[in-house]
Amino acid sequence: MYEVAIVGAGPAGLAAAMYCIRKGVDLQLVAPTLGGKTTATVNFPDMTEYHVIKAREQVHVFRGRIEYLDHTYRLAHVTEIVDQRDHFLIRLHQHKGDAYDSIQAETLIVATGARGEYINVPGERKFAGLGVGTSAISYTHALPDRDVFMVGNSDRVIEAAIEAAQHARTVHLVIEPHADYTHHYLELADRLESITVYNGYHVRGFAGEEFAREVEIQRGAAEPRTIQADAFFLEREPEPNSALVRHLVECDDRGYIKIDEKNSTSHPLIFAAGDVTTVGIEQILIALGEGARAGLSAYRAVTAGKLS
Amino acid sequence: MYEVAIVGAGPAGLAAAMYCIRKGVDLQLVAPTLGGKTTATVNFPDMTEYHVIKAREQVHVFRGRIEYLDHTYRLAHVTEIVDQRDHFLIRLHQHKGDAYDSIQAETLIVATGARGEYINVPGERKFAGLGVGTSAISYTHALPDRDVFMVGNSDRVIEAAIEAAQHARTVHLVIEPHADYTHHYLELADRLESITVYNGYHVRGFAGEEFAREVEIQRGAAEPRTIQADAFFLEREPEPNSALVRHLVECDDRGYIKIDEKNSTSHPLIFAAGDVTTVGIEQILIALGEGARAGLSAYRAVTAGKLS
Repeated sequence: MYEVAIVGAGPAGLAAAMYCIRKGVDLQLVAPTLGGKTTATVNFPDMTEYHVIKAREQVHVFRGRIEYLDHTYRLAHVTEIVDQRDHFLIRLHQHKGDAYDSIQAETLIVATGARGEYINVPGERKFAGLGVGTSAISYTHALPDRDVFMVGNSDRVIEAAIEAAQHARTVHLVIEPHADYTHHYLELADRLESITVYNGYHVRGFAGEEFAREVEIQRGAAEPRTIQADAFFLEREPEPNSALVRHLVECDDRGYIKIDEKNSTSHPLIFAAGDVTTVGIEQILIALGEGARAGLSAYRAVTAGKLS
Repeated sequence: MYEVAIVGAGPAGLAAAMYCIRKGVDLQLVAPTLGGKTTATVNFPDMTEYHVIKAREQVHVFRGRIEYLDHTYRLAHVTEIVDQRDHFLIRLHQHKGDAYDSIQAETLIVATGARGEYINVPGERKFAGLGVGTSAISYTHALPDRDVFMVGNSDRVIEAAIEAAQHARTVHLVIEPHADYTHHYLELADRLESITVYNGYHVRGFAGEEFAREVEIQRGAAEPRTIQADAFFLEREPEPNSALVRHLVECDDRGYIKIDEKNSTSHPLIFAAGDVTTVGIEQILIALGEGARAGLSAYRAVTAGKLS
């Protein structure tokens, strides 16, 4: 029986683990890989690297530390989480040896993130990290004097486009069919000279050589159009990976786990951090802070349990 | 009229400023100095530096960036904040030239931190940073094989002592007179072999040469006792610096500003981050994440204001 089980090892899960380790908590971190989405960085043609935000380095240091403390984690998929009243039963599928197993823990930290930026069109995987990326707001330093392409299905992409327009030469903003967005917000984007809006278009594929250099878009059955750009961002609304715990904690209507300012959920022994929560801002520095806080909150719950 | 005013320039205020700057927000950061408490680091005799947590470096980078963008901040004390319905009036006292001034802003981020660790006894200021420090949990890497002294007036110091006991050779735990703590919690500490509890004592002063090496404590009118140690930590309950906004936002009964998971307060145009909030965990990494989140929340409030 572990004191704390942490599911997910992106920035939030790793930070939670490090803060639990610092507190001497007996923990098990479970995830398919260590590092989460931060293992994927994006390069653009002729980009000069300059990072003001050191969060990626912090994630790297945490990951190295956890790898060294190899009793603290296991690489596996979690298949089910059962609340057995005085503890949680966490069923696992380990890739190594294709083994099924389970662990038990007194408290649980959910840091499973979100998914779903990808569209699944030709060239998208090939150029992932090579001109095609997610989360434009993490790359504003790379945008000056560039032509930027963005696609999405919600206010999220409009917000990203407005921000990118402060830096980039031009922004091509594709709003997918059946998107759910605020009309006033789109008007605001449309009024900006550097933004061109393509409303109701879908992406047919990316092309290029070393890096992605063009994208084909189409509206209904009309003739497809080709747009050339230096950087392509997928800014679709992510889906929270909360299915494992939706029967245990309160979520909002989009499936994000509701948390308070200390990363508590509606279940007194479950904490949550990072992109799976209602905070909903995909920024590494924020996920790190949340993970640290969730780790300390879980530690306090464990200590309170010992005292009672 | 600024879009956002940020009061306080510790890790939370600096992170809030950086994320607002990345969003192109017209902002003004106001604080007596840049860097907050993180400018004070503590050294111990023969300490080998090893930092797993890169948060201080991040603060350093943010501070450097803000200093470079010198139109984004001013060094001043805030003397009063007035809600004028459609904006905030922030009265300032600037040290340079001893001038009184004011600024106006649409939204406000409060990141004024907490204070009050210091006891005001002989030797305390002299050895501040030289063996005497605050927040022991940030220095666990420096504690192995050391004798540690801690003083406080709440569960906070007991928690710190229990954690330090996992690393240090011995922990001398002084609970001040009139302290407010959980008896079970103190019993737990007392059961740990490496912790010696001195209940109802007060600290009379620190002594040493290059570094603090001993502390004199006393209980009532009894003969004072001298304790030798390698590291001395003040872990008293901090007081939130929320007086400036207590008439504007809801606070808990100790004066901490109540926030939700997105750093909103009870006032729709005021956000708060860091040690002044109910999160109440003095960790730089957490304050950075909170500041970033408060910055993005303020940016969204500003954008919503433009749309309405």
